[in-house]
Amino acid sequence: MPSALQVQTLRRVTIDEALDAVAKHPVRQVPSERLRISASLSGRVTASEILAPEDVPPFDRSSVDGFAVLERDLRAAPPGQPVRLHIAGEVRMGEAPPGPLASGNAIRVPTGGALPPGADAVVKIENCRESNGAVEISGARGAHDHVTRRGADVKRGDHLCRCGDILTPASLGMLAGAGIAEVPVFVRPRVALIVTGDELAPPGSQMRAGQIRDINWLSLDAALSAIGMAPQFVYVRDDKASLAQQLRESLEHGDAVVISGGSSVGERDYTPAVVAEAGSPGVIVHGVRARPGRPTMLGIVDERPVIGLPGNPVSALVMFELLGRPILQRLFGRSDKVIPVRAKLGAPLERDPDLERYVAVRLKMGDSGVEAEPLPGSSAQMHILGFADALVRVPQGSGSLAKGAPVDAVPLSKNNAL
Amino acid sequence: MPSALQVQTLRRVTIDEALDAVAKHPVRQVPSERLRISASLSGRVTASEILAPEDVPPFDRSSVDGFAVLERDLRAAPPGQPVRLHIAGEVRMGEAPPGPLASGNAIRVPTGGALPPGADAVVKIENCRESNGAVEISGARGAHDHVTRRGADVKRGDHLCRCGDILTPASLGMLAGAGIAEVPVFVRPRVALIVTGDELAPPGSQMRAGQIRDINWLSLDAALSAIGMAPQFVYVRDDKASLAQQLRESLEHGDAVVISGGSSVGERDYTPAVVAEAGSPGVIVHGVRARPGRPTMLGIVDERPVIGLPGNPVSALVMFELLGRPILQRLFGRSDKVIPVRAKLGAPLERDPDLERYVAVRLKMGDSGVEAEPLPGSSAQMHILGFADALVRVPQGSGSLAKGAPVDAVPLSKNNAL
Repeated sequence: MPSALQVQTLRRVTIDEALDAVAKHPVRQVPSERLRISASLSGRVTASEILAPEDVPPFDRSSVDGFAVLERDLRAAPPGQPVRLHIAGEVRMGEAPPGPLASGNAIRVPTGGALPPGADAVVKIENCRESNGAVEISGARGAHDHVTRRGADVKRGDHLCRCGDILTPASLGMLAGAGIAEVPVFVRPRVALIVTGDELAPPGSQMRAGQIRDINWLSLDAALSAIGMAPQFVYVRDDKASLAQQLRESLEHGDAVVISGGSSVGERDYTPAVVAEAGSPGVIVHGVRARPGRPTMLGIVDERPVIGLPGNPVSALVMFELLGRPILQRLFGRSDKVIPVRAKLGAPLERDPDLERYVAVRLKMGDSGVEAEPLPGSSAQMHILGFADALVRVPQGSGSLAKGAPVDAVPLSKNNAL
Repeated sequence: MPSALQVQTLRRVTIDEALDAVAKHPVRQVPSERLRISASLSGRVTASEILAPEDVPPFDRSSVDGFAVLERDLRAAPPGQPVRLHIAGEVRMGEAPPGPLASGNAIRVPTGGALPPGADAVVKIENCRESNGAVEISGARGAHDHVTRRGADVKRGDHLCRCGDILTPASLGMLAGAGIAEVPVFVRPRVALIVTGDELAPPGSQMRAGQIRDINWLSLDAALSAIGMAPQFVYVRDDKASLAQQLRESLEHGDAVVISGGSSVGERDYTPAVVAEAGSPGVIVHGVRARPGRPTMLGIVDERPVIGLPGNPVSALVMFELLGRPILQRLFGRSDKVIPVRAKLGAPLERDPDLERYVAVRLKMGDSGVEAEPLPGSSAQMHILGFADALVRVPQGSGSLAKGAPVDAVPLSKNNAL
């Protein structure tokens, strides 16, 4: 029911204004779980700060093939004279060194081998001549630098991850190297994906006359998965009671809700009314000054985001990328905006006096940096978006953005870095 | 065995020269499979061109709530006079229209509803007044434009995907909308990941004295998965016979091989010799004029790429991103290079007179576009890479790149678009 906490719904705001308005209301973070690091964790988000439990490397190591020595033995020889040291043993890879190094001795060490206690320098094999159990060292420039000190990469207690960091191949490697066996990560948020539209035939089903094939299930399911969500999909009939009932159930069992269709102002557009009645603060934004996707609705009910997307598949996916993605990332405690690619426009684009436009482009490397090539055709065509790499923002205004104008391109979600 | 086809190995080449040299040799594409589109396919790569089997939308649709009419009935009225038409029925969402529309009649139609045969325009509900089974139309501006024609988005036979396209949320939606139920995609390439280094303790194992924790298994496994590969991991002891035996087996059962460690010129660096002996053309590049990662080896054996990465985890991952990633994408018939992000340098970086450098940076949005902020510390430190978003290329030369200089930043692999 509408309550005293109900907010004044904003209408006809820009994408940035819409995000700022939603950001004023709290969102409940999802709980965390501990996962073994050797499970495939890439793409998960850390649920706490992580400190290094040990030094990396765990001992002084040689960075070359050569002989571990005492630096003062090298300095003892007169300039220009070779140093002669007794070969007291050998370090084997992955084994403990054969005891401490005494003055006058050298111990053979491979690249990456542990230095024996006492050793503080390594002479490269190229500068050594062996004979009769001894090594003659003719040049020792940089011997001190051929040691990688214990903790040179990471020191015990070093800060490795903040809460809310996305685990990448490199950060997984860093954690493994520091001896982390389990990682605290946020569970994948359960996001209900409610698709409305009595005219929709599910993918793969037989189409009846008057039906069209549903697109939003597949594209929004893939887009949600791409940002680490666990989508839970359901079709709902176009009547207010069914939608209200499903929204209640989804809010009870899930962390957020995405509704496709019914977000406009037509007679069967029940989404805003149903969200307003579901709880506080309810509908925060209804209608954005951007195209495609003008009739988008953004709400929060009991700290759970509810994103009402237009039924048109292009509008739905564009608004998911621009609004749904950053809002749902708040379930991980993240609030970062997407970093756009700065590009040069490959063809002029007309500005709209009333709206900001988001135009599908292909990105390519030109002689002077990245070029954003608008795809020919109408922005309402799904196949245009299917061919696109990114969305270029055309600010509200008169006239055109000229060919060559600098623009910001927001990359579209993919599941990987290809 | 070395054969007449053995190539002259290139040494000390730049990253681009290395890629060009490898590109001269054929790589065997992986086979394809057909997958149901409703399976999660995002990130897979299409294995053939895909044409649309049907029109999208499959019939003329109304884009507004209103009345379907014959345009000539609208034009028949004198200017300024309302048009009065008999209401002959109603189109319901997802159902066939109630028969053809005759002159003098109008049929009620919802947004997205199928137009009855004969109807060629829709008058918005705001311009209609109903009484006694008739509708009075007072303005019909744009009535013709309120029809989305059959095939307006996609026409039967339209080209939807090229071979080698990465399936994204948008392209999956486009295919589903056009009635595609199964998609031909390349199988995930089986890439053997051979990790050498007798000093390495596997993640989670108890470390003995002299051992260090292995990083490359986890980071390279995650990086391979992120670009759609199916990594098959194995540790191999540091002896030539074991590595040669494993390489033979991996080449027999896999599509490509990545070897970590043993790519340098030390006495236990068997990778180049073993690859040269495995088949033709063998080692194509050994040693790049770039840092970190100088001792990298690139080869092809019987049309299967073999990537020899340094054992140092930072060097290994940087070279995987710059060389391994584009070379392995050729298994899908793709040859695209990664599109870098054009950024402004946030702090000066010293150039190297002999090498191009790749420096780990964080990207952030500044007032005048993307800023690349070099991470403090040595480029040999894994934790630096763990914190980074991208690698900035510092061309070979003297002096420094100044703060504010334009640079190209290659984004690091992630598993998703967060």
